[in-house]
Amino acid sequence: MTRSRQLHLGAFMRPVSLHTGAWRFPGAFPDANFNISHLKRFVQTLERACFDAFFMADHLAVLNMPPAALRRSHTVTSFEPLTLLAALSSVTERIGLIATSSTTFDEPYHVARRFASLDHLSGGRAGWNLVTTSNPDAALNFGLEAHVEHGERYHRAREFYDVVTGLWDSWADDAFVRDVESGVFVDTERMHVLGHKGEHLSVRGPLNIARPVQGWPVVVQAGSSEAGRQIAAETADAVFTAPPSLAEGQRFYADVKSRVERAGRDPEHLKILPGAFVVVGDSVDEAREKRALLDTFVHYDSGIASLSIALGHDVSQLDPDSLLPEIPESNASKSSRQRVVDWARRDQLTIRQLAQRIGGYSGLEMVGTPATIADQMEQWLVERGSDGFNVMFPYLPGGLDDFADKVVPELQRRGIFRRAYEGTTLRDHLGLPRPENRFFARRSGD
Amino acid sequence: MTRSRQLHLGAFMRPVSLHTGAWRFPGAFPDANFNISHLKRFVQTLERACFDAFFMADHLAVLNMPPAALRRSHTVTSFEPLTLLAALSSVTERIGLIATSSTTFDEPYHVARRFASLDHLSGGRAGWNLVTTSNPDAALNFGLEAHVEHGERYHRAREFYDVVTGLWDSWADDAFVRDVESGVFVDTERMHVLGHKGEHLSVRGPLNIARPVQGWPVVVQAGSSEAGRQIAAETADAVFTAPPSLAEGQRFYADVKSRVERAGRDPEHLKILPGAFVVVGDSVDEAREKRALLDTFVHYDSGIASLSIALGHDVSQLDPDSLLPEIPESNASKSSRQRVVDWARRDQLTIRQLAQRIGGYSGLEMVGTPATIADQMEQWLVERGSDGFNVMFPYLPGGLDDFADKVVPELQRRGIFRRAYEGTTLRDHLGLPRPENRFFARRSGD
Ligand SMILES: Cc1cc2nc3c(=O)[nH]c(=O)nc-3n(C[C@H](O)[C@H](O)[C@H](O)COP(=O)(O)O)c2cc1C
Ligand SMILES: Cc1cc2nc3c(=O)[nH]c(=O)nc-3n(C[C@H](O)[C@H](O)[C@H](O)COP(=O)(O)O)c2cc1C
Repeated sequence: MTRSRQLHLGAFMRPVSLHTGAWRFPGAFPDANFNISHLKRFVQTLERACFDAFFMADHLAVLNMPPAALRRSHTVTSFEPLTLLAALSSVTERIGLIATSSTTFDEPYHVARRFASLDHLSGGRAGWNLVTTSNPDAALNFGLEAHVEHGERYHRAREFYDVVTGLWDSWADDAFVRDVESGVFVDTERMHVLGHKGEHLSVRGPLNIARPVQGWPVVVQAGSSEAGRQIAAETADAVFTAPPSLAEGQRFYADVKSRVERAGRDPEHLKILPGAFVVVGDSVDEAREKRALLDTFVHYDSGIASLSIALGHDVSQLDPDSLLPEIPESNASKSSRQRVVDWARRDQLTIRQLAQRIGGYSGLEMVGTPATIADQMEQWLVERGSDGFNVMFPYLPGGLDDFADKVVPELQRRGIFRRAYEGTTLRDHLGLPRPENRFFARRSGD
Repeated sequence: MTRSRQLHLGAFMRPVSLHTGAWRFPGAFPDANFNISHLKRFVQTLERACFDAFFMADHLAVLNMPPAALRRSHTVTSFEPLTLLAALSSVTERIGLIATSSTTFDEPYHVARRFASLDHLSGGRAGWNLVTTSNPDAALNFGLEAHVEHGERYHRAREFYDVVTGLWDSWADDAFVRDVESGVFVDTERMHVLGHKGEHLSVRGPLNIARPVQGWPVVVQAGSSEAGRQIAAETADAVFTAPPSLAEGQRFYADVKSRVERAGRDPEHLKILPGAFVVVGDSVDEAREKRALLDTFVHYDSGIASLSIALGHDVSQLDPDSLLPEIPESNASKSSRQRVVDWARRDQLTIRQLAQRIGGYSGLEMVGTPATIADQMEQWLVERGSDGFNVMFPYLPGGLDDFADKVVPELQRRGIFRRAYEGTTLRDHLGLPRPENRFFARRSGD
C-alpha cells in the first residue's frame, strides 16, 4: 500500500501571535517578546506534535505606523531571530528552525555563516527565509535615504543566493580529516575559494565554517510578486504564501510548480506552504466566538495602520465609512496591495470594515472543530492547493495547545501527518534531498 | 574588615583551545569546532567554577596562511559566535557570554540588535568585544579590494559605538506598559528616534528590541595601539590585552586607567584583564613537561605562518636559522608586530625559534602548580598589573578541568575569588554600574 500524500506543518510565529489583539486575550503572555521561557514552552509543544518547523517572522525596523497604532502593537520589538533560534536549538532535538534574513540589508558572508552555524548547532535543522524586505523604513536604519527599488532588490537577492550557496560549498563534506597522527587537520585540496565578483556583490571566500550538516540549510521564499515567484522556482526548497482561498491557492500552486519544472527542477523538491490562521473550538460556533472575541481586542487605530501598510499608502486620513478610493502603486509589496484592493472591490467594504479585517488577521483562515479543520487541510492537500501549511495560532498558548492536542491527532488518524519524526534534519522532515557540493563530487565509496 | 580586591576571570576560548597543537593533545576533542556538546560541557564547568565570563574569539575570514600551515590548523573554521553564545545561554544561568563583533564589516543596527537579543535571552549576561578586525583578508569577503586603513577603522569604530549605545537607549526601561485593560502596549512617549547622521554612518532607529536587561551589554575592547587604548578609555567596560610581563602589564594598566580618568570616568569602571595561558601541574616540573609536550604538536609550517601573521609580513621564504631582518611596518596590527620584533632583538632569536614560540602560544604564561599560579595572579592583582585575567587553557578539556578543580579553589581559599555568584548579570559579576538611559531619566519613585 502506498502511503497517502503527507502534510507538512510549519508554525509561523510571533512571540505573542501574529494577531494584533492577541496580547490582550485571556491567558496570553503579553511579555513573550522579552521572556524566552514562553518561547521554549511553545517550541517544545510543537516538537511533541511533530511539526516540521518553527518559523519566526522578522523585520528590520519598528513598523512604520503612526504613534496611535504603534502604542497598541505587541509586534514593535522582539528577539533577533538567529540568536533566538540558536537558543531554542538547545532545548529541542528534532523540529526545524527557520529564521528570516534580508538580502537587501545584510552581507552574504554573514548570512551564509550564521545559518551554517545554526545548522551545526542544531544538527541539521536550520532554514533561511530569504526576503528582500518590503518595509521601506528598514532602509533608513542601514545608511540609505530611501528604499531600494523592487526589481533591483530581487536582482541582488538572486546574486546573493548564488554567493551564499557557493560559500556553503567552500569545503567538501570530507575536508576535515583531523588526522591526529600526521597532524593534518584539513585537506586544503578540498577547500574552494569562491572568488565571486558580480553586479552587486564581491566576495572572496572561503567560508570559515564547515559545510552545513544539511549541505545547505533549507531555503524558503515568501514573496509572491512575479519576481518573487520566479526566484522561488529557481532556488527555494519551500514557499510561504498567503492565498485567501483554495481556488487562488491552486492557481498559485500550479503556477509555481510549473515554473519549477521549467527551471529544470523536480516539482516535488519545492514545498508550497500557505499561511493558515487556525481557530479551534469544540463546536464551529465556539470557534467563531473565540475569533470574534479576539477581534474585539483590535483597536481601530491599529487596524487602520495595518491597512495603510498593506496598501503601501497612508489611508488614516480618509473617512472610515467611505469606500476605498483608487490607490496608486507604490514601491512596497505589490502582491499585498493588490489583494486588499481586490477584496475592497469584491465585497464593497468600507475603510472601517477593511481595517478591522486586516487589523486582526485577514488571510486564509480555518475556524472550526478539529474535524472541519482537518477536512479543509486534507482538501487543500488532495486538490493540490498546497503541500501543507504554515499554521498561525490566533493567541498563545491556548491556540497552539488546541492545535497540538486536538487537530494534530485528527490529522494523524487520517494518515496524512506523521506520528513520529522519521529523520533528524529539516530536509528529512520535508522530504528534500541533500544538495551535492557544486565544487566537489563525492569520493567513490561514500 | 574590608574585603580584599577581587579577581575577575574570563575564559578566552577557541573550541579546541587557542594553542595550534592542542587538537592533537591526548584526550582532546578535535571535532569541537562542529560539535556543540563539547562546548556545552566547557561552559558548564566554567560556570560551576564561578567564572565571570566565557569569551569566544572570532575572525571574519579563513586566516591568511599558506596551505602548508592551513592544513594543520584547527582554527580554520568554527561556529559563528552570536549563535553559539545564544545556544549556550540556554544551558547556563549565571556566567557572562562575550562575543566578538567587528565595527568595520557590520552594521550598527544589526550589532545593537543581536547583542540586545543575547542580553534578553540570557537574562543580562551579554558582552560585546568591539574589534576593528586586523585580518586584511576579511575585507575581501565584504566587497572591498583592500583592508580599510588602521586610523579610519578606529574613527568608524568610535562612531559605531555611539550609534549602538544610542540604539540600545531607544526605549526607556519602563516603556512597555502592557496595559491589557486599556489596550496600550507601549508608551511611545518613552521611545527615542536616534536620527544619527555622521561621517561614516547614518541610522534612524529606533531599535526593534526593548532596552537590554543590563541597560547596555558589557563593552569590551581588545586593541592595544594608541587608538585602541584611547577608544577603550572612552568607552569600554573591560579591556583584553596581552602584555608579556608584569612590568609591561603595569605600564599598560597605569596608562589605560589614567586615560579613563582623563576621559572623566571612574577608573574602577574599566576592568583590565590580560590574557594568561595557564598550564597546571602537580609540580612545576610536571606543568613544564605538559607545556613541552604540547609544543611538540606544533609543526614548523604552522609556526612560520603564525609568525608571518604576527609580523604582518610573509617571512616563510627566509632562512629558518638566520636572525630576523628589518621588517617594514604594515597596515595590520602594529602592537603585535612591535612585540615580536622586540623579542627577536632582545633574545637574539632565530626565525625558527621565534616561529616555535609564536606557533604554540607566545604571550603571558603561567606554568606551575595551583599555588605558584595563584601567587602570580595575586601579585598581578595586588601590584596593579590587572584586575583579573582572561584565562587561556592550553588544551581541552584537561587544561580547563585542571584550572577549575585546582586553581580556582586555591584562589577562593585566599579570599580573592568568589565562591558563588552574588548577582545575576555580567555587570554584577564585574562590579560595573548599569548605565542610565541617555534619553530618559528614571521616573521618580523608581
Ligand atoms: C507567510 C509569509 C511570511 C513572511 N515573512 C516575512 C518576514 O518575516 N519578513 C519580511 O520582511 N517579509 C516577510 N514576508 C514578506 C515577503 O517576504 C515579501 O516581502 C512580501 O510578500 C512581498 O513580496 P513581493 O515583493 O514579491 O510582492 C512574508 C510573507 C509571507 C506570505
Ligand atoms: C585577548 C585578545 C583577544 C582578541 N580577540 C580578537 C577577536 O576575537 N577578533 C579579532 O578580530 N581581533 C581580536 N583581537 C585583536 C584586537 O581586537 C586588535 O585587532 C589587535 O589587538 C590589534 O589592535 P590594534 O590595531 O589597536 O593594535 C584580540 C586581541 C586580544 C589582545
